[in-house]
Amino acid sequence: MSLSRDTFGNRAKEQDELEKKLSSFEKYIQSTFAEFIGTALFTFVACLAVSSRDVLSIAFAEGLCIALLCAAFVNISGGHFNPALSFAAAICGAINPILAVLYFVAQTCGAMVGASFVKAVILGDSYHILKGGANQFRGLGVPYDPYDSFHHLNVTPVTAIVVEAILSCLIFTVYLQANIDKKSRSSMGPMAYGFALIVAIISGFHVSGGSFNPARSFGPAVPSGYWDQHYIYWAGPYVGALVSGVMYRLILGDGKKRLIMRD
Amino acid sequence: MSLSRDTFGNRAKEQDELEKKLSSFEKYIQSTFAEFIGTALFTFVACLAVSSRDVLSIAFAEGLCIALLCAAFVNISGGHFNPALSFAAAICGAINPILAVLYFVAQTCGAMVGASFVKAVILGDSYHILKGGANQFRGLGVPYDPYDSFHHLNVTPVTAIVVEAILSCLIFTVYLQANIDKKSRSSMGPMAYGFALIVAIISGFHVSGGSFNPARSFGPAVPSGYWDQHYIYWAGPYVGALVSGVMYRLILGDGKKRLIMRD
Amino acid sequence: MSLSRDTFGNRAKEQDELEKKLSSFEKYIQSTFAEFIGTALFTFVACLAVSSRDVLSIAFAEGLCIALLCAAFVNISGGHFNPALSFAAAICGAINPILAVLYFVAQTCGAMVGASFVKAVILGDSYHILKGGANQFRGLGVPYDPYDSFHHLNVTPVTAIVVEAILSCLIFTVYLQANIDKKSRSSMGPMAYGFALIVAIISGFHVSGGSFNPARSFGPAVPSGYWDQHYIYWAGPYVGALVSGVMYRLILGDGKKRLIMRD
Amino acid sequence: MSLSRDTFGNRAKEQDELEKKLSSFEKYIQSTFAEFIGTALFTFVACLAVSSRDVLSIAFAEGLCIALLCAAFVNISGGHFNPALSFAAAICGAINPILAVLYFVAQTCGAMVGASFVKAVILGDSYHILKGGANQFRGLGVPYDPYDSFHHLNVTPVTAIVVEAILSCLIFTVYLQANIDKKSRSSMGPMAYGFALIVAIISGFHVSGGSFNPARSFGPAVPSGYWDQHYIYWAGPYVGALVSGVMYRLILGDGKKRLIMRD
Repeated sequence: MSLSRDTFGNRAKEQDELEKKLSSFEKYIQSTFAEFIGTALFTFVACLAVSSRDVLSIAFAEGLCIALLCAAFVNISGGHFNPALSFAAAICGAINPILAVLYFVAQTCGAMVGASFVKAVILGDSYHILKGGANQFRGLGVPYDPYDSFHHLNVTPVTAIVVEAILSCLIFTVYLQANIDKKSRSSMGPMAYGFALIVAIISGFHVSGGSFNPARSFGPAVPSGYWDQHYIYWAGPYVGALVSGVMYRLILGDGKKRLIMRD
Repeated sequence: MSLSRDTFGNRAKEQDELEKKLSSFEKYIQSTFAEFIGTALFTFVACLAVSSRDVLSIAFAEGLCIALLCAAFVNISGGHFNPALSFAAAICGAINPILAVLYFVAQTCGAMVGASFVKAVILGDSYHILKGGANQFRGLGVPYDPYDSFHHLNVTPVTAIVVEAILSCLIFTVYLQANIDKKSRSSMGPMAYGFALIVAIISGFHVSGGSFNPARSFGPAVPSGYWDQHYIYWAGPYVGALVSGVMYRLILGDGKKRLIMRD
Repeated sequence: MSLSRDTFGNRAKEQDELEKKLSSFEKYIQSTFAEFIGTALFTFVACLAVSSRDVLSIAFAEGLCIALLCAAFVNISGGHFNPALSFAAAICGAINPILAVLYFVAQTCGAMVGASFVKAVILGDSYHILKGGANQFRGLGVPYDPYDSFHHLNVTPVTAIVVEAILSCLIFTVYLQANIDKKSRSSMGPMAYGFALIVAIISGFHVSGGSFNPARSFGPAVPSGYWDQHYIYWAGPYVGALVSGVMYRLILGDGKKRLIMRD
Repeated sequence: MSLSRDTFGNRAKEQDELEKKLSSFEKYIQSTFAEFIGTALFTFVACLAVSSRDVLSIAFAEGLCIALLCAAFVNISGGHFNPALSFAAAICGAINPILAVLYFVAQTCGAMVGASFVKAVILGDSYHILKGGANQFRGLGVPYDPYDSFHHLNVTPVTAIVVEAILSCLIFTVYLQANIDKKSRSSMGPMAYGFALIVAIISGFHVSGGSFNPARSFGPAVPSGYWDQHYIYWAGPYVGALVSGVMYRLILGDGKKRLIMRD
């Protein structure tokens, strides 16, 4: 497993031409497609799960979906399905910047495709009541909605960004430690990444709607046209990614990835 | 583990007669019986779990049941318990076609046996209110039922087939990557397969009733006589199996199973 | 891991006297104490969890408790915490009959100790409303109880025994395959055992109260004096243990434990 | 994995000066920082999760959070995030006493930081209704609170301490067996530790509020000023830690850590 994981990082130079061509396929095309199809399926599941009208059900649908997609694709693409996480992984040197850009495009396109399928299968009023599964800021000031059975806390868009950033930092730190770090990664890594999303959604749902993933928020915003406080879902996760990446590089990383006190 | 998994795929030719006889027992009789008893127990659990009248409970009962049965039998039969998944596995070359046919018979018979036991233990009105645990299409047009506390979305049988197909594609792709693929399979594979069913039921329950398994739908339909929109549960999963199988063969598979850009 | 598991089965004869004494300690005293303390903690948790008045919460409390206790003690005692499972394991030759008897005593005593602690901490009416956490048959004929918010199905004590037997058979078969069988056991074994209990409680709670464990039912019956239909919780699990043990010996077992078509 | 775990226990003497300096960094600074940031994130999640007003959601948020943080940091700091567990680990010789003191300071400071962030993001009345996420004793005698939808049992502060002690003993015993013990530890150890917290919260919430962690209780008590029956959350877990540590040293430990009948 550790061997395959290193293949999309850096490869030995003595490989012949044919093998290089094949590895390029696996390194760029297969991995980018995995991120595309994975994010599309995840966004479809996440938006449809809003129809359960129950926070615990939404948390399990989204979190377990990330856990199993990451278990399926961790050795193929790293199993991110989240552009902010790909950014954090690039900061830590786990993927190269070109791949991070390819992943960004694949993830945002995938999310739009997944969310569009939701519009195709849930018709008329039902789709509008769910707002297409878009994440919604849950502060006290939002207009009254008779179909919305969730309660609201006294929060502002700024505190929602802070909550998204802290919980994203939790998710990304767990991903980096449990899936990339040489000293602490293990076979439970993909489960830990998915469980982190469950935890973050239960805790943060009544504040920000619980996204922690710009692609998952951007995807349904396009077909549903629901863009209220949309900047929360970009600012929060990217700040969290920056903090977790820096923390990893300075203190928590293994002897090779850490920038100070190296082996 | 990887060794045992290959045993029901292809075997070395230099084995003597006795060993062949034994391996035939394990390859065909033991594995087919495992699919039979596993699907019977799964269908019994799935139909009885409808008595909880709670989507999250149903999702956990069915999904965890698949996870643990697959963990128990993955090295014996592959742990499918789903004819559409056996079809996808046959497309990908993970099991041979004869075994896929044997599994189909074992799974559908097992599901009928499991569902018949539900009729034997839940008596009178209780059984009819639950419709024997059969999957029910949940669109707006279905007749009003005072015992049904679930809400309904604006969907049609056609969109229900699309939802079944997409979520089946998620489940089967996860199974293929996490349990069969040489590059990405791991000890978490059976858990990933079961978690995929939890995720799919939470997301799809209010659309199609959340089957993703023709045997699980066919089983209770026989003793309960509830056949409304039954074709959804055959068309959806088989389309999903075809898509996930083709996607695996073209792009996502490892160097040997992939048909293009092979090693 | 596989090595330690074999230690409580059979040991090589060439060990010297001192090592024998030590191994006797680990083989009999440490393992029996682990079953005692594990069953005591499990019964305490199971009886207290009834105060949640929610089937899904009860299922997760009991099932995850078995999963983690089994993960902690699987290499020490096998991690049964259930006399019917110890009986099934003895049928399959996984533990010797003397150990099965010692485990039976430890498990029933442990359950009584755990249940007595519940009586010590939950006072007065609260304890009597919960019936001390005892399992209750949930058929239509039981007397009306205003504090009982669970619904009731049309079942009889006989069908409750059948449900207990079938679901116990599921739990024990999963334990045998995932923790004992040479071909299919894995590191996920303890989780699979615990998840089986979650699944069984969700499915069977509205029929029999969901025990599948004579010790867990016997424990609280003693301090609370609630013995209604108590025979269900002995007949069901032991029939299930017999069926799963015979099925394992005849068809599902590995080449050495299987009685027919051996290697 | 077993190698890295031993590194924070005892090290070979033949290492040169440079390596010692590096290992000191990893042994003391990295591990203590991991406990600090982990406890801060855990306390933030735990306090925010109270806004779900649902015991099962709170149990999953706290328990899964410990599971994933432990999975991420088990090879770096041991993944305790609980001063009472660090005390039990010190009793069993898994960490040295100096580290236990450093961890105590890091954990209590981390918990205060995490809880203070909750005060920063949940404003005005919402924060006071949640009492900042502090653990609350749930006996019958507590003053009526119209916002509190949980039911109450007939318990006293003394029985609440007993419940905290028994369930803490369960959690810590599972941690010691599944993460430290040479004979029974496994890759499922961090999951087992987290699942134990889920189980304990479901069972104990209606008695003591379900802490089992002095840091998690102390953290929010400081910014919210809610100190009612606060001693429960120190007395209970430390008694549980003492019992589980002694039990491990006397009977359940492996041949080297056990004080009697050693190898």
